[in-house]
Amino acid sequence: MFAAPVHRRGFATSCRALAGLTGPVESRAVVFAEHGDPTKVLKAHRYRLDKLDKGQVRLRFELGAINPADINVIQGVYPSKPQVREDIGPEPLSIMGNEGVATIEGFEEDGQVEHRFKVGDRVVMGAPQLGTWQSHANLPHSSLIPLPSDTHLHLRQAATLAINPPTAWRMLSDFVPLNPEDPNCVSKGKKKQWVIQNGANSAVGQAVIQLAREWGVGTINLVRSRPSIDELKSHLHSLGADHVLTYDEFLSRENNTRTKIKEWIGRDGEMRLALNCVGGKETAEMAKLLAMDGKLVTYGGMAKTALALPPSLFIFRKLTSVGFWLSNWVQTHPEERQTMMRSLAELTGQGKLKEPETEVVELAGSDEEVAEKMSGVMKRIEEGRGKKILLHWKDE
Amino acid sequence: MFAAPVHRRGFATSCRALAGLTGPVESRAVVFAEHGDPTKVLKAHRYRLDKLDKGQVRLRFELGAINPADINVIQGVYPSKPQVREDIGPEPLSIMGNEGVATIEGFEEDGQVEHRFKVGDRVVMGAPQLGTWQSHANLPHSSLIPLPSDTHLHLRQAATLAINPPTAWRMLSDFVPLNPEDPNCVSKGKKKQWVIQNGANSAVGQAVIQLAREWGVGTINLVRSRPSIDELKSHLHSLGADHVLTYDEFLSRENNTRTKIKEWIGRDGEMRLALNCVGGKETAEMAKLLAMDGKLVTYGGMAKTALALPPSLFIFRKLTSVGFWLSNWVQTHPEERQTMMRSLAELTGQGKLKEPETEVVELAGSDEEVAEKMSGVMKRIEEGRGKKILLHWKDE
Repeated sequence: MFAAPVHRRGFATSCRALAGLTGPVESRAVVFAEHGDPTKVLKAHRYRLDKLDKGQVRLRFELGAINPADINVIQGVYPSKPQVREDIGPEPLSIMGNEGVATIEGFEEDGQVEHRFKVGDRVVMGAPQLGTWQSHANLPHSSLIPLPSDTHLHLRQAATLAINPPTAWRMLSDFVPLNPEDPNCVSKGKKKQWVIQNGANSAVGQAVIQLAREWGVGTINLVRSRPSIDELKSHLHSLGADHVLTYDEFLSRENNTRTKIKEWIGRDGEMRLALNCVGGKETAEMAKLLAMDGKLVTYGGMAKTALALPPSLFIFRKLTSVGFWLSNWVQTHPEERQTMMRSLAELTGQGKLKEPETEVVELAGSDEEVAEKMSGVMKRIEEGRGKKILLHWKDE
Repeated sequence: MFAAPVHRRGFATSCRALAGLTGPVESRAVVFAEHGDPTKVLKAHRYRLDKLDKGQVRLRFELGAINPADINVIQGVYPSKPQVREDIGPEPLSIMGNEGVATIEGFEEDGQVEHRFKVGDRVVMGAPQLGTWQSHANLPHSSLIPLPSDTHLHLRQAATLAINPPTAWRMLSDFVPLNPEDPNCVSKGKKKQWVIQNGANSAVGQAVIQLAREWGVGTINLVRSRPSIDELKSHLHSLGADHVLTYDEFLSRENNTRTKIKEWIGRDGEMRLALNCVGGKETAEMAKLLAMDGKLVTYGGMAKTALALPPSLFIFRKLTSVGFWLSNWVQTHPEERQTMMRSLAELTGQGKLKEPETEVVELAGSDEEVAEKMSGVMKRIEEGRGKKILLHWKDE
């Protein structure tokens, strides 16, 4: 287990320009040369970091998160990909990793970086595919988001803060505005708002449950059945879920679930938002439960099937079906992102937004040993077993 | 054949109050007592019109149109239904008919109606399900839209003006604004815009082709194959279609259609709008051809299957899938509707917007004879044969 609280290492101010001046620093990285089967194509690689350029900072990665989308990146079917690096070895390589937390180890004094950071600050990634599955990197300061030091986040919290909680926040804000701080918030003085979601046990789903609870929004949460279903239901209820149903319970006609859900929502409530990361049969049933003018927001397609919806929902019930991808949103909303990240960090620091259950995998030893460990990790993820995995490079 | 041009009958001003004062007027109507099979449940019925109330006008229907949605109304599966009338016979009956053209025969002088109408004016229906498949009716003046007398519309043009051309207009205006008179029109000084649609031979489809041509928007039109396909293609080209493809040609991999379509659009063009009234396999292919931020607008579901779309289109390509139903739109846009109808009537009068091919069915004789004729008409429609049918009650 690995649950080190944030503590600032004793860097002296004179360290600021350290990295650029001292001897060569080596980074260890999980890479691939060609897209393919995630259990096979990942390799470990060492490369020497260049001298820092102006505007760059030297990072030590504390934790690199593995998200479901990373599997698609390795397979080559994800629209955003890590840069192909010609400069780090004899063959072109891509360094994996989209999400993580890092500590700033140094930078050249250039007037710009000092304004935003000091050595020892913790940062999360502000641009996609920067390569978080490595031990060190030189990155432009503008691609990083500082974590407010007063929020006292654990490393595991920080490592899982930049992708999934923002995805939940935007989906609850941008289609049917439910955040009470939003002037357009629909629940202000009106009906209590409800949200229905599938994949409710995902990292995004858990963030949805908690933000909805904070914002006074009711949630109906659908999950896969499993041997430990009672435990999972209690866990989601403890996060603030109003109702948790397995897909079988939801789809069963005997249980009269549609009637029950309508009773839960009641006449004083309405449900206009459904969040979908699966895409199977129950997605259409979720959409059918939405009130007039409802929004179905898709952010994943775990069922790997087309999203099949009756035309009448669109024509007569004014359903809108859209998608959400954080990478698209951040490109056009740099400032809102900073404000949102600050709020998310605060909620997390106050214990109101818990990180998903995580497991830290330590990477150490020879390149062959690291590659073998990564292959095992990928196999476990493909089988859908276990908690969210965070990678940590052991000091050598 | 029946193609009488509009000509104003010689009503004297003194006729204004005629209808309310003279003896009883009888209306003949196509009705149903219970929803069911359209070839079976329609009956003919005669009822005596009440004395005109304040604000009502007496109408003589010239033509009542039969639209595909009317079949669903009779079956009882359409969300808007004609009123159940307890006042016109021994059993409750509903008078069919949503679209048509009528002449004003009279009204009580009450200060309101005179402001909008005079006897002899032609009107189309401004509210749904008013019962256009009858010979006469008393209706509130506020539910009628006057046709501008200077547009010189034929009766067939007027009878087909209120539903399908407005549907085409709104779909080309409200999702990706293409009307050059709209300040938000996307083609202003930017790329040439393209639209792709299925069911392109429908009344809506033909209006889309013609409005797009007027507005400088390119169209790619998909139709069912048929023995007379060459004739149909020439007809749609004569209306302004840029490209017409059968579904087989569109879906065929051998023809390399995707590449061809991309060449047609070219680098100076973009396609962000797809219009769907079918819902089959080719709908997903249409959506895949849309540029980033594309809109798929569904206004029908002829294939009677779910609309199946890959989640990735929503997530990564920012596809939005919505529906359009004129009845929803008109409720919230009464003034825009008047302006649009005026423009549509002008375009039609100028020969720039041709009505679909129509056939007038004369209704006459006993109630049994009328019911039998309607049963035959419904059978032909179910088999998908023939032109758009307009009903006309012969004077007795």
